[in-house]
Amino acid sequence: MLVGWSARIEQGDHVVVRVAEGAHDLAVAVAEQLGERGATIATAYAADEVSRAYLRGHDGDFETPEHELALYEHADAVLSLGGGRNTFATADVDGDTRQASARAVDPVREARLATDWVSTVHPTRSLAQQAGMSYEAYQDFVYDAVLRDWGALAGEMQQLKETLDAGSELRLVTERTDLTMSIEGRTAVNSAASVAYDSHNLPSGEVFTAPYATEGTVHFDVPMTISGSRVRDVILRFEDGRVVDHAADVGEETLTDILDTDEGARRLGELGIGMNRGIDRATDNILFDEKMGDTVHLAVGRAYDACLPEGESGNDSAVHVDLITDVSDDSRLEIDGDVIQRNGRFRWEEGFDADGSA
Amino acid sequence: MLVGWSARIEQGDHVVVRVAEGAHDLAVAVAEQLGERGATIATAYAADEVSRAYLRGHDGDFETPEHELALYEHADAVLSLGGGRNTFATADVDGDTRQASARAVDPVREARLATDWVSTVHPTRSLAQQAGMSYEAYQDFVYDAVLRDWGALAGEMQQLKETLDAGSELRLVTERTDLTMSIEGRTAVNSAASVAYDSHNLPSGEVFTAPYATEGTVHFDVPMTISGSRVRDVILRFEDGRVVDHAADVGEETLTDILDTDEGARRLGELGIGMNRGIDRATDNILFDEKMGDTVHLAVGRAYDACLPEGESGNDSAVHVDLITDVSDDSRLEIDGDVIQRNGRFRWEEGFDADGSA
Repeated sequence: MLVGWSARIEQGDHVVVRVAEGAHDLAVAVAEQLGERGATIATAYAADEVSRAYLRGHDGDFETPEHELALYEHADAVLSLGGGRNTFATADVDGDTRQASARAVDPVREARLATDWVSTVHPTRSLAQQAGMSYEAYQDFVYDAVLRDWGALAGEMQQLKETLDAGSELRLVTERTDLTMSIEGRTAVNSAASVAYDSHNLPSGEVFTAPYATEGTVHFDVPMTISGSRVRDVILRFEDGRVVDHAADVGEETLTDILDTDEGARRLGELGIGMNRGIDRATDNILFDEKMGDTVHLAVGRAYDACLPEGESGNDSAVHVDLITDVSDDSRLEIDGDVIQRNGRFRWEEGFDADGSA
Repeated sequence: MLVGWSARIEQGDHVVVRVAEGAHDLAVAVAEQLGERGATIATAYAADEVSRAYLRGHDGDFETPEHELALYEHADAVLSLGGGRNTFATADVDGDTRQASARAVDPVREARLATDWVSTVHPTRSLAQQAGMSYEAYQDFVYDAVLRDWGALAGEMQQLKETLDAGSELRLVTERTDLTMSIEGRTAVNSAASVAYDSHNLPSGEVFTAPYATEGTVHFDVPMTISGSRVRDVILRFEDGRVVDHAADVGEETLTDILDTDEGARRLGELGIGMNRGIDRATDNILFDEKMGDTVHLAVGRAYDACLPEGESGNDSAVHVDLITDVSDDSRLEIDGDVIQRNGRFRWEEGFDADGSA
């Protein structure tokens, strides 16, 4: 799925495989597929504990790793196999060091993003723990999320994309949410887990766009960890596209810090609609959570260029923080007054209840 | 020891760290040192199981990985951290595939060897098993071998190098060995585990040269595994520099195959004298065994250029197979008739017995 559907690897492609500490078995499977397709392979060891040791040893005056830059500049595709052994492995690296290093390696990141890159994860005990699940159940969860009929889902998501592209105003209503935003002139992305769709995550399964002129109140009921802090039951109130009030039952301070980062951090950068019904629960991992079927997520901060008119720049910010709300119950999504989803059912699905009378 | 003494890493050096499956902890320690010195770091995952999967998946028509080549061409140093989880991990990859791949990646190998490269191993359970040792005892063994006073040993080895460089004929005598060879015009290498000495292994601790015109019989009593086969108690008889008779108590067929590879495989390419007394036993790993104190090794096959007069090419062969003999007892090494080592003691060491009367 990763090598074929997602990355579209072909004979002669120069592929970098980035292997996290716990992703060995997936690296073995990927290597066999790359061999079968006649691609070349170079492997990088992407171990958080190695990064931590390097960063903590360093005085902070970083240089760009020219050799690593050359590797990615000569690569056609990069497959990042996540899956570490401790989600807090770099928790004691200070922020300044982290940022100084990020600036020095930014050309490497840019070169990587210029390839046909795909990020995925291999199920590890650490990720199972983060999800509050047994290792065995977590493995099933990951494979259910990844092994979809992506072609069929892409077709379904295309309908939603076209509806969003044609629409002007979007309204989201849940038990404690009533929010409107403009999507006029914006282009939705059909994120079907393949570079052929400009989609670079496996799993994926979301349609997202870049809204603006947001008004009203939204409640996010899916709990998550942001920058190492638990956050749950966030409420944001918007006026003129800007967050003017916020609260959270847990992690309100973290939320305040995010919103205070810069002016763009108080405006929406993304509205995404989760379409992957293989993801049936939140696991505190944004790669999965934001694609969960029957959810909608909004991100404060930076918008994606792909959603904007050519040459136009969207909401600008140093952050992009996703927050998620469950729409499986007591909820509806309207575009220009037409209900396109109610209680998690889209209007083209069986069981869709247009007027909420069921 | 690896980053400082061996590789001489300095501020701004672009370093590739190649990490075997079991070498994670060493990679963490090395990364911290690289950070402290202000070097940059790129990590490669050198996992035998990944190589096996790639090679077995491939149809055999390999291309050069241009991206990996670019990585090494832009690197100043390469630290290879060996230590896998199964010394037979690639045993079921066929020889033709292996050779075809080796030809395609040869430019990458050449680029790597053009850097300040150093190979070492991290103690793993797999290597302990190969050595017939407990994991705990094997860890002690590895650190005893590596954590030497290399500066002092380099000084001692320099004496032996100068003696060999000045000599014409070398004679090795043990209980079942009486062998003479010419070393006239050849240059010995003082292999002190540092790129500053043109020495690329950690541990090291040997002085080696390229002999010729070998005559007589030699018995190798240190058992080893060669190409996956156990070999022990090898006897070779030389006439006019060429093996004319051979036998082995175990693995004679393997020995015959090696000697029949090509004409050069019947001539000596190397005589090495083990000087690392931190290595006190054979562990069936040539990186350690050939440097063991109180041993001498001879290799049939290819000679090293560093031992030869500028522009002259030594014994040429597709193979270079080391065989080791214990010289701690009942043994002597003579140069031009002078005993330079008897029963493992060099003539500059306490307890040296020049005339064997002790």
